[in-house]
Amino acid sequence: MTRRIILDCDPGHDDAIAMLLAHGNPDVELAAVTTVAGNAGIEAVTRNALAVARIAGITGVPFAAGAGRPLVRSVEYAPDIHGDSGLDGPVLPEPTFDVDPRGAVQLIIDTVMASEPGEITLVPTGALTNIALAARIEPRIVPRVREVVLMGGGVHVGNWNATSEFNIVIDPEAAHIVFNESWPLTMVGLDVTHQALATAEVRERIAAVGTRPAVFVGELLDFFGATYLASQGFASPPVHDPVAVAYVIDPSVLEVVKAPLDVELAGTLTLGMTVADLRRPAPRTARPRCRCASTSVASGISWSTRSHRSA
Amino acid sequence: MTRRIILDCDPGHDDAIAMLLAHGNPDVELAAVTTVAGNAGIEAVTRNALAVARIAGITGVPFAAGAGRPLVRSVEYAPDIHGDSGLDGPVLPEPTFDVDPRGAVQLIIDTVMASEPGEITLVPTGALTNIALAARIEPRIVPRVREVVLMGGGVHVGNWNATSEFNIVIDPEAAHIVFNESWPLTMVGLDVTHQALATAEVRERIAAVGTRPAVFVGELLDFFGATYLASQGFASPPVHDPVAVAYVIDPSVLEVVKAPLDVELAGTLTLGMTVADLRRPAPRTARPRCRCASTSVASGISWSTRSHRSA
Amino acid sequence: MTRRIILDCDPGHDDAIAMLLAHGNPDVELAAVTTVAGNAGIEAVTRNALAVARIAGITGVPFAAGAGRPLVRSVEYAPDIHGDSGLDGPVLPEPTFDVDPRGAVQLIIDTVMASEPGEITLVPTGALTNIALAARIEPRIVPRVREVVLMGGGVHVGNWNATSEFNIVIDPEAAHIVFNESWPLTMVGLDVTHQALATAEVRERIAAVGTRPAVFVGELLDFFGATYLASQGFASPPVHDPVAVAYVIDPSVLEVVKAPLDVELAGTLTLGMTVADLRRPAPRTARPRCRCASTSVASGISWSTRSHRSA
Amino acid sequence: MTRRIILDCDPGHDDAIAMLLAHGNPDVELAAVTTVAGNAGIEAVTRNALAVARIAGITGVPFAAGAGRPLVRSVEYAPDIHGDSGLDGPVLPEPTFDVDPRGAVQLIIDTVMASEPGEITLVPTGALTNIALAARIEPRIVPRVREVVLMGGGVHVGNWNATSEFNIVIDPEAAHIVFNESWPLTMVGLDVTHQALATAEVRERIAAVGTRPAVFVGELLDFFGATYLASQGFASPPVHDPVAVAYVIDPSVLEVVKAPLDVELAGTLTLGMTVADLRRPAPRTARPRCRCASTSVASGISWSTRSHRSA
Ligand SMILES: [Ca+2]
Ligand SMILES: [Ca+2]
Ligand SMILES: [Ca+2]
Ligand SMILES: [Ca+2]
Repeated sequence: MTRRIILDCDPGHDDAIAMLLAHGNPDVELAAVTTVAGNAGIEAVTRNALAVARIAGITGVPFAAGAGRPLVRSVEYAPDIHGDSGLDGPVLPEPTFDVDPRGAVQLIIDTVMASEPGEITLVPTGALTNIALAARIEPRIVPRVREVVLMGGGVHVGNWNATSEFNIVIDPEAAHIVFNESWPLTMVGLDVTHQALATAEVRERIAAVGTRPAVFVGELLDFFGATYLASQGFASPPVHDPVAVAYVIDPSVLEVVKAPLDVELAGTLTLGMTVADLRRPAPRTARPRCRCASTSVASGISWSTRSHRSA
Repeated sequence: MTRRIILDCDPGHDDAIAMLLAHGNPDVELAAVTTVAGNAGIEAVTRNALAVARIAGITGVPFAAGAGRPLVRSVEYAPDIHGDSGLDGPVLPEPTFDVDPRGAVQLIIDTVMASEPGEITLVPTGALTNIALAARIEPRIVPRVREVVLMGGGVHVGNWNATSEFNIVIDPEAAHIVFNESWPLTMVGLDVTHQALATAEVRERIAAVGTRPAVFVGELLDFFGATYLASQGFASPPVHDPVAVAYVIDPSVLEVVKAPLDVELAGTLTLGMTVADLRRPAPRTARPRCRCASTSVASGISWSTRSHRSA
Repeated sequence: MTRRIILDCDPGHDDAIAMLLAHGNPDVELAAVTTVAGNAGIEAVTRNALAVARIAGITGVPFAAGAGRPLVRSVEYAPDIHGDSGLDGPVLPEPTFDVDPRGAVQLIIDTVMASEPGEITLVPTGALTNIALAARIEPRIVPRVREVVLMGGGVHVGNWNATSEFNIVIDPEAAHIVFNESWPLTMVGLDVTHQALATAEVRERIAAVGTRPAVFVGELLDFFGATYLASQGFASPPVHDPVAVAYVIDPSVLEVVKAPLDVELAGTLTLGMTVADLRRPAPRTARPRCRCASTSVASGISWSTRSHRSA
Repeated sequence: MTRRIILDCDPGHDDAIAMLLAHGNPDVELAAVTTVAGNAGIEAVTRNALAVARIAGITGVPFAAGAGRPLVRSVEYAPDIHGDSGLDGPVLPEPTFDVDPRGAVQLIIDTVMASEPGEITLVPTGALTNIALAARIEPRIVPRVREVVLMGGGVHVGNWNATSEFNIVIDPEAAHIVFNESWPLTMVGLDVTHQALATAEVRERIAAVGTRPAVFVGELLDFFGATYLASQGFASPPVHDPVAVAYVIDPSVLEVVKAPLDVELAGTLTLGMTVADLRRPAPRTARPRCRCASTSVASGISWSTRSHRSA
């Protein structure tokens, strides 16, 4: 069965690849694409999303711009990784369509409310601001959403500091809201995505496809690989966001564990940390509720899922 | 000039009186009434708001229900003060009209965007959840709002604990958002409203009016006076929310001071405290931005403004 | 009856005056003087204490150096108020005796344990690091101490930021320890000491005394007055620390109120705030325990107590 | 070369075994034993320490009682693991000598100051209250201590809650002080000690020794095994504290990694978490300073070191 998803993203090199994967793969269908400030400002990431849509040939899918800043904290961007535009590297084409005037939050609400209960999966690959706002503005979406499968956080690993990942730490209150709602939630964190490396072998395989999107992905990975090497010392860049999409396409690519999972809002060293309680046996007081994707299986599998339709 | 306001409230005895005052006074006009969980749950306070509308004879004003819970924290109510219904005491009539289907946040956004810049004043007399959501969903409302005049917080006084007031402490993140936006904001806090006491003399004057709304206010004050006496030892109850409306009607009823003003989000003893920096001379680093209403002038004046139209 | 005190201080212009007052007044006797880092580093404030002892002619009283840094936080000094030496302004004489080798904490413990229960009053006029350490190293001092009368904190007033006073905020954990021990504690805070101003009239009266200590106090106030004017805009400088000594000498110079009193350790805006719960009637859950000195009575009285013996 | 250690402990079943190991092994010498509240109250753990000394035949080593409560937080014990006495299970003999009147903190200071620089290793196996107090009372001990090798904390594992270990979380401020001092520090955390299991095979080997201490260890492990099974589901109990002693005896039993290491003081979910920054490559801003023991090597080795002298 084809899974209908709303991709809520901040493109972002890996967001762009996630979008290409979601569009290209027959087992998943983009119900909407929404943007949120993060890797760059909201105008930049929205323009990037529309440019990627043109490259991928996405039509008939509503795109909408969302939150330009976190709920409570000051806004932070990630130019060291994504450049000032959020998608430095490739030359981007002009968009061929415009954003939906309703805005991201209302588009999310309308899409979920207009679909069958359990039909829509939310796939956030940026800060969780839009999703949190949607849940608070229209709580009836919560039981209608099939699942939230998000890229963000991590079990025992951070990138923005020792314990916290960028998507979560830039809007920890939004993440707290999303992690504590009653929908099923699967966190695809850095512990997983740091294994999804665009190695030379992977990049050669993509290059061999030869299509416009494949060339574009190559250009994205050229830039992304260089900044990840310079800023965090990765020989091959981790391609975070597509892993969440890959998991929706085929849950068997990841092993998941059910555990209590929450977001730290008050720590000096740990603000924005995603705290999974992995004690075994679980203490009686701990409600195992969320699911942490914990181990990626053969990354070759997940990369190959990527080229079906875009090839 | 008549000031158009959106009353965002959680009736609540004093919210009800604030609504009667806003409706009854010719210098202020209700552009919309929105509700938020606080004194009681969202269904209860919304039903109460519609019942008060019937008693006051309010027609042609859109009412909408808003947030049923705070942004981040667990929900808290105030039955010790307002009873389980939020408006215990009087027998309430059935509402004669229904709420606007757009919901409170969208109604606030639409009302502000459809009005002239500087036309609408927001008057929140409950938790700031709706206002915060509106500012994040549609940031263009912020420069269009004339002013936010809110009942909440306090300078050097709390009621929910030693430092914090109920409206702020039940959703401190929302309050932080509202206090830190760029609109003009005047806080009418407990330091002011604890001076706005419904003394025997005041209540006699209201009783003498003899109208249906006046009888209703008398019944409200009977209940409110009893709970304030029992729970906080007030001989005459402080009638908080109408003071914010009275200030919109006639700014001269309060003295205000401009000062840096913020909301504590992290304290163990001080969570939800409204921190005004009143040091004189102000430190160079302190931006005096918000205004704290600090002293109520002759309360007789403000009470007399109340009965113009409702009489 | 003469009250025996341990003055735990960080001289500091007003600490120096407090020492002169304690030595000069017949109703109080210095059992020991201990120093703590604060206004300047521990070597500086200790040297200052010994120099003041020489000026005052203090002999036979043990002096000891204490903590050079707070318990947990990084060390902070106050050169804007006290100069780099902690006692800029007067030329200081060489000390005529040396510090006690036991160190401040052990001297405090030994002095209290060697005295009768209820004999010793602790008078801290700096950070509370030494007192906290003494209470934790030797808990038996707690019930033996007559009272802690400290200069620090404030009710609804700060100087280091909007809510916090220097002595408390530079070592809030130490203050939390001291405020939560079971000894009687009276806080002489900024709300009081901002009323103890060294006005021109006061300074003329001191100058008229003509003794060496009086000349020294004049020089101290020249410097202190200039920095308080420049940094905080006071026309006449508040002379904080002697007020605690004056209260020990004559409790009638201050009105005090018993209230729950605690120190905020976690706030972003309120770290180090002394939180007094002044709600009336007090909530059932609040233990009124500490005492906040709240109103200084005629400051003329307290200043005149100062010159008895030093004249 | 024999390493002279101060064992600062809260016996505690595994503390008792650590003491037996330290006494019995020729490569380490007990310079002093000090106690701290933790597994049980200070009277109980001190009596337990003296009883263990009698069983082990320890003479000529000063024992002293230390802090009966944490620096700032309320006191917490661990009766679920250690019983009400802190050492439930065996019948304990009456002590044959008394504690040193100086108390733990002064004994630590005196022992370090009377030894050569670099001679004394501190081995805390309880809360870090005594060590923190000693460092603040007499900072000159810090550069004289050879190393702090402590059992506590953990990398990515907790026992008191999802992220925090008992010894650290019951006095996080003390831990923060100790972890941030300039001495070399090696943390032997739960990640290591959860591998040091007293399996049936280990217990048989100990029983085979047949001496009084060996019988005593067997009785300790009977009780400890039962409570660990009941409370945390361990089939064989982790014997935490001796691992720190074993590492002092033979550093090769553990692999260690140098990393920035700190203690969270402010988190809601993470209070008392030991935060190691294990990002590779290390960010430029991170000072790798402390060492986390990360992998225990063949546990058989460490257990066999235990029986040399006690056999
Ligand atoms: Ca992203
Ligand atoms: Ca209200
Ligand atoms: Ca001082
Ligand atoms: Ca232990």
